[in-house]
Amino acid sequence: MRMSREEVEAIASKLNYRHRDGTVVAVVQDARNGLVLMVGFMNRDAVVLTLTTGYVHFWSLSRRRIWMKGETSGHRLRVQSVYVDCDLDAILVKVVPEGPVCHTGHLTCFYRRIVDGNVWDYELGLKRGLERD
Amino acid sequence: MRMSREEVEAIASKLNYRHRDGTVVAVVQDARNGLVLMVGFMNRDAVVLTLTTGYVHFWSLSRRRIWMKGETSGHRLRVQSVYVDCDLDAILVKVVPEGPVCHTGHLTCFYRRIVDGNVWDYELGLKRGLERD
Repeated sequence: MRMSREEVEAIASKLNYRHRDGTVVAVVQDARNGLVLMVGFMNRDAVVLTLTTGYVHFWSLSRRRIWMKGETSGHRLRVQSVYVDCDLDAILVKVVPEGPVCHTGHLTCFYRRIVDGNVWDYELGLKRGLERD
Repeated sequence: MRMSREEVEAIASKLNYRHRDGTVVAVVQDARNGLVLMVGFMNRDAVVLTLTTGYVHFWSLSRRRIWMKGETSGHRLRVQSVYVDCDLDAILVKVVPEGPVCHTGHLTCFYRRIVDGNVWDYELGLKRGLERD
């Protein structure tokens, strides 16, 4: 999915960038199987870049800069379709990932499931602690 | 899914409430069909309430209070499973909704798809403007 700069600007101008640093929430979902892959934030420039290049870009709240997912790892997220929510402050991007999405090597950043007070790595079926990777 | 208060407190204490008002991002997905339904924010109390009651609670950034989704409409979100992301600042809640999720009556808040610079109501196949509902 790629759109012209004019089309993209018209859409980007409508969103409500009400979150930190002037962003919308961006949920990324695997277009093939429905797996929710990660969540990030996009400012207006990141929205424009995502729609014009066809690859997901975010605004990094910690580094305070635009980044293309996969710019280092090569595991880019190719955009297949984009949805906006009712109050225009969140978007849903369905993608085809070009590699594992999580920096841990998992297919999704949401790879740990909470079960009865324990945390399970649902891809591997292992019981784990709840520590940051 | 309901857990004991002790189990829930242990998990809630591990999350990184780094977003506005001390919140994590919460993505809500339909457990039956993978549809992404809505996005919200949860502070620690909302996480605890969600896990102990088995119904999704959020922190409202605009009203600055806890609310249970469906407290007015009756369209509650029954929790089926919960996942945490790699850096512990986002959770994914798979639910069975007890009614349409969006206040517009749509099944999901992400009911508008961007197609070549236009916006389509993908549930109804209608071309629409991109205005807030």
